[in-house]
Amino acid sequence: MSLAIKDDEVDIVIGALRSDLTIFMNEWRPMFSRFHVIIVKDPDLKEELKIPEGFNLDVYGKPDIDQVVGSSISILFSGYSCRYFGYLVSRKKYIISVDDDCLPARDPKGFLVDAVAQHISNLTNPATPFFFNTLYDPYAEGADFVRGYPFSLRGGVKCALSCGLWLNLADHDAPTQALKARQRNSRYVDAVMTVPARSLIPISGINIAFEREAVGPALVPALKLAGEGKCRWETMEDIWSGLCVKIVCDHLGLGVKTGLPYIWRTDRGDPIASLKKEWEGVKLMEEVIPFFQSVRLPREATTVEECIIEVANAVKERLGPMDPVFARAAKAMLDWVKLWQSVGSSSSRSSAV
Amino acid sequence: MSLAIKDDEVDIVIGALRSDLTIFMNEWRPMFSRFHVIIVKDPDLKEELKIPEGFNLDVYGKPDIDQVVGSSISILFSGYSCRYFGYLVSRKKYIISVDDDCLPARDPKGFLVDAVAQHISNLTNPATPFFFNTLYDPYAEGADFVRGYPFSLRGGVKCALSCGLWLNLADHDAPTQALKARQRNSRYVDAVMTVPARSLIPISGINIAFEREAVGPALVPALKLAGEGKCRWETMEDIWSGLCVKIVCDHLGLGVKTGLPYIWRTDRGDPIASLKKEWEGVKLMEEVIPFFQSVRLPREATTVEECIIEVANAVKERLGPMDPVFARAAKAMLDWVKLWQSVGSSSSRSSAV
Repeated sequence: MSLAIKDDEVDIVIGALRSDLTIFMNEWRPMFSRFHVIIVKDPDLKEELKIPEGFNLDVYGKPDIDQVVGSSISILFSGYSCRYFGYLVSRKKYIISVDDDCLPARDPKGFLVDAVAQHISNLTNPATPFFFNTLYDPYAEGADFVRGYPFSLRGGVKCALSCGLWLNLADHDAPTQALKARQRNSRYVDAVMTVPARSLIPISGINIAFEREAVGPALVPALKLAGEGKCRWETMEDIWSGLCVKIVCDHLGLGVKTGLPYIWRTDRGDPIASLKKEWEGVKLMEEVIPFFQSVRLPREATTVEECIIEVANAVKERLGPMDPVFARAAKAMLDWVKLWQSVGSSSSRSSAV
Repeated sequence: MSLAIKDDEVDIVIGALRSDLTIFMNEWRPMFSRFHVIIVKDPDLKEELKIPEGFNLDVYGKPDIDQVVGSSISILFSGYSCRYFGYLVSRKKYIISVDDDCLPARDPKGFLVDAVAQHISNLTNPATPFFFNTLYDPYAEGADFVRGYPFSLRGGVKCALSCGLWLNLADHDAPTQALKARQRNSRYVDAVMTVPARSLIPISGINIAFEREAVGPALVPALKLAGEGKCRWETMEDIWSGLCVKIVCDHLGLGVKTGLPYIWRTDRGDPIASLKKEWEGVKLMEEVIPFFQSVRLPREATTVEECIIEVANAVKERLGPMDPVFARAAKAMLDWVKLWQSVGSSSSRSSAV
C-alpha cells in the first residue's frame, strides 16, 4: 500500500446539517487531526455551529457562499449539497468527505477503522476497470492478480474516486427505509474492488474520497428533488453526481473503487414521515438510468469540464422534455463548470493553508 | 434465500487427477452425501481409484469416454478437462464441481462452509448484471438494494453460473505462483456479487456451479496449452471456457456470480518446476482478451449452442491465423456442440438416477 502522500495534500470536507458537531469531531479526531478540515454549514441551518478545539479548519456559511457564488445562480447549496461548496473552494489534491451523522466504524476484530487512511490507500493505488479480479484488490497486501488476468492490464489506471460503505443504517431509498425501518447492515465485507468500466453504480455521498485535481468538476450538485429533505433517503443529489462521475471516468480511462472503508451511520430522521411524502426519486430513476447507460461522450471531450458540458447538453436535450427537474439539473451542471473555472482561477486562497 | 430445489436436481462432478480420493470424499461427505456424484477419472491416470463407501455415485474412465465420444474427435478429456465428460453425461439441472485437491473451508468463526448449499443459493437467487449494488448481494439476508438502484432492475435475472473462491493456495498463473511460491490467501471476503454485464472475468474451474440446462454447452473444453500440466497454474482450459460462458450469458441476459463459497486448496505441484517451462498462457492471453472484449454475437443466436458456434467461427477467423492452438480450440468448440446435442438426445441415461 502506497501512502506516500503529504498531509497537506488532503482536505476533509464536512457538510454541517446540524449545529452540534462536538461528538462527531471528537470521535473522528484520531483520523482528521493531521489534515486540514473544511466545514460548510447548511445555509438552512440557523443555529451557531459548535465545533471542539484542536483542529486546523475553515468554516464557511451562507455569507461566504453568497459572496463566492452569488445569489442569482441556479445551484442550491442547501442540505447535503452544502458540501459541494467545500469541494469548490478546496485547493488540495484529494478530498475526503463524510456525512455528519457518521462515526468511525470498528472492524470484526473490534479495531477502529481509519477511514481516511483507507481512502488514501484506495486513491493512491491503481484501479483495474477493464478486467475483473476475482480475489478483489490485487494491490492489497497478500493479494495478486489471479490466473487468466491479462498481463498487459496489470498496471491498472489512476483511481479517481473511492466510495466507502456503511455499517448500521444502510443507505436505502425512502420506500425501502420506511418498509424496513428496523433493518441494519451488520455485514463487514473485507474488500476493495474496482467498479468495472461501463457498469453504473449508485454512488453515495455518505463516505467518499476523490482526487479533486482529476475529477473535481464531475462531482456536481445538480439534481434537486422537489420534496428533498434532510435525510439521505429523501435525496438523489449524490446519485446523480455519481452517475456523472462514473461515465466521465469511463470515458477518460480513470477508475472508481467501492468497498472499504466502512463508517458507522447513526440513526436520524423518521422513515414513516418519509413514507407519507411522495418520493420523486422512484419515478425519476427510471428515466435517468437508461439515459446514463446510453449517453456517449465524443472523443474530443478530453477534460472533465468538457465531459460535464457534453453530459449537461445531452440531459437538456433528452431528459429536459420529460420533467423540469432535468432542465434545472442541466443548467446547474453548466453553471457548476463555469463556477469551478472562475473560482479555481480567481481564488486568492493559497494551496498551502 | 430460496433453497427450494430437490436433491435429485444436482450432480456433483469430480475430475479425479489422483487415484486416492479417500480423504477428499470423506471430508466432503457432509455436503456431498445427499446428492448424486459423478467421478471422471483422468484418462492419463493409470492406478485404480480409491473411493470410500457410502455415496450415490457413478465413475467414468477412459473406456466410457472412448465409447461415448469416440477417439477420433478433437476434444481431449485429459487432465482437468476430464470433468467436462461429467458435464456431458449428467442429466441434472444443476452441476457443482470442485477440484480434487480442495477441502471444505472454515469461515472466520471456525464453522465449516457448506459450499454446495451456498452454490445452490447463488444459482437459485437472481443475479443483477445490469447495475452494480454497492452492498453486494441484495437478496442475501439482511441486505437490500441501496438508494439509487433502479426499481425496474430489482427483479434481477436468472443466475446461470456461480464461481466460488479459494483460501490457502490462491489461483495464480505459473509465473506468479513461481515468484510468490509462499504466498497464501487468508482473506475471507463475506460477499457474493454479480459480475456486471460486459465485464470479463478470469473464471476458474476450481470451485464452480452452473445451471446445466441453461448454459451447459458453453462450458467447453477447448483451449489446450502445448505444455499443459496437472497443476492449475499450468492450464488455461477453464479461463477460456469462462470467457465463452460470460459473453454467452451477457448476450442471453443471464447472470454470473462470484464470491462465496470458499473452499480450502491444499498444496500440490512444484512451482519452481513450472517456472522452467515456457508457459504459453502469458502470450496467448494478450491475444485472447481483445478478441473476447470485441466479439459481438448476432441477434439471431438465441440458444447457447448457436452462441458457441458463432464464437467458434469468430475464433477460427480472427484468432486462427495467429496460433494453431486457436484453430484447434475453434474445432473443439464445434465438436463439443455436436457432441452435446448427440449425447444429450441419444443417451439412454434417465434423468432420475
